[in-house]
Amino acid sequence: MKLLRFGPPGAEKPGLLDADGTVRDASGAVADWSGEALAPAALAALPAPADLPAAPAGVRLGPCVARPGKIIAIGLNYSDHAKETGAELPAEPIIFMKATTSYCGPDDAVLLPRGSTKTDWEVELGVVVGAKARYVAEADAAAHIAGYCVVHDVSEREHQIERCGQWVKGKSHDTFCPTGPWLVTPDEVPDPLDLRLWLEIDGKMRQDGSTSTMAFGPAYLISYLSQFMTLEPGDLITTGTPPGVGMGCKPPEYLKAGMKIKLGIDGLGEQNQEIGQA
Amino acid sequence: MKLLRFGPPGAEKPGLLDADGTVRDASGAVADWSGEALAPAALAALPAPADLPAAPAGVRLGPCVARPGKIIAIGLNYSDHAKETGAELPAEPIIFMKATTSYCGPDDAVLLPRGSTKTDWEVELGVVVGAKARYVAEADAAAHIAGYCVVHDVSEREHQIERCGQWVKGKSHDTFCPTGPWLVTPDEVPDPLDLRLWLEIDGKMRQDGSTSTMAFGPAYLISYLSQFMTLEPGDLITTGTPPGVGMGCKPPEYLKAGMKIKLGIDGLGEQNQEIGQA
Repeated sequence: MKLLRFGPPGAEKPGLLDADGTVRDASGAVADWSGEALAPAALAALPAPADLPAAPAGVRLGPCVARPGKIIAIGLNYSDHAKETGAELPAEPIIFMKATTSYCGPDDAVLLPRGSTKTDWEVELGVVVGAKARYVAEADAAAHIAGYCVVHDVSEREHQIERCGQWVKGKSHDTFCPTGPWLVTPDEVPDPLDLRLWLEIDGKMRQDGSTSTMAFGPAYLISYLSQFMTLEPGDLITTGTPPGVGMGCKPPEYLKAGMKIKLGIDGLGEQNQEIGQA
Repeated sequence: MKLLRFGPPGAEKPGLLDADGTVRDASGAVADWSGEALAPAALAALPAPADLPAAPAGVRLGPCVARPGKIIAIGLNYSDHAKETGAELPAEPIIFMKATTSYCGPDDAVLLPRGSTKTDWEVELGVVVGAKARYVAEADAAAHIAGYCVVHDVSEREHQIERCGQWVKGKSHDTFCPTGPWLVTPDEVPDPLDLRLWLEIDGKMRQDGSTSTMAFGPAYLISYLSQFMTLEPGDLITTGTPPGVGMGCKPPEYLKAGMKIKLGIDGLGEQNQEIGQA
């Protein structure tokens, strides 16, 4: 099942993608993709997409689930990306938060913060929590996952690193968390640790990695995070980025207004963003 | 005006404290203390507390506003606390987040995380956002403040500092953010930078400071934070702690199950917590 949300920002309706790639309107079956509606049992009971009315053609897609209670991000979680930044792979996951106000649709414009010269890109695998988790064992973590999606963890490196800490400063600007186009349920993702993920800028490939080089996988992360906080349905975990970010270029390269970004993960869809100015 | 919420966890009703210290039920006038209801103009239009029905005597108080979209905390924001931890005062505010699931009532039990040996206390001045703020000047910040409250920024130091970062790990456990008893509107807080704040454990004073030693005050913080993210009504900013935390003792001292904590800020009320075990 591929869950999505469509319509104007802040007034999205829940939908499903059918086998032909048509957006279907699920608002008659569910109020929104949030809370109890994301429980694996609730998702299994949904009507077949083909039995739902089609949404208007060309409609905007919003972020694929309702705004989360928290967006938890994992730092330096790819062995090859850690190498590129000159850092060691951490012994335990590095955790930081993105402000939930950074959350937006997969094809919405990404806005450079005022005065920014170091806005960077990061394609990531997102994991959405489907059931409350606190002190969960790794072996039991799968039952707490609603699905997987593409996340663009946009990052302002000066704000993240050079402004007295912590990283949240560079991760929280509005439009810094495009999420979607859809949330793919685990039955359609045979191995989340064998997915190609890539990002192009103006047609040039900049990141082309695989979740197979991820240090801490989704089930481990659910279990680990649940030792420090309660995860709730709809919470978004974005699991780190493979090599190829702007900060890792020699010399570093960053985003400029007018650039066009395309990113995706095998089986989870694509995002398309134009860079604008806040 | 003193805003509060009363009733069982997760089902609190909005209320007001009257001049006699009686809790009044405001649920006929407002759905909850969140969103537009926190705008200064909306608060100014509320009925007088004495005209509202009394809530049941002895009712539990919840956190004084509805669960925020974000809880933003400021690190090392008191000159005398920075000295105690051996750190320099930062050139700019240090920002971190607490998971919103840590949010709880002022007198709810504080639960030690499983295996924790370094859970610490921090009395803090909380600032609740009353109107959306993005790129706001310090001179205009006052219009974005709904009010002030007591916050207990409970912190697990091993998780915060010794577990590969970032600080959010030690700040986000359930019950680590008691907030209230009430939100006091700015007209009743003549100078937020001249408030005594204190914390006792089992009757012994451990923190006894003043917001006058705060490095970055509420108006500055609203303006500063709004350069990095959009602040929304109901967002909670907790502004750092004065000296006297457990980590600063020689040798360090930490909380144990059964201890009783009392903390408060002049004019903003008191919190009373018993330490339990998660």
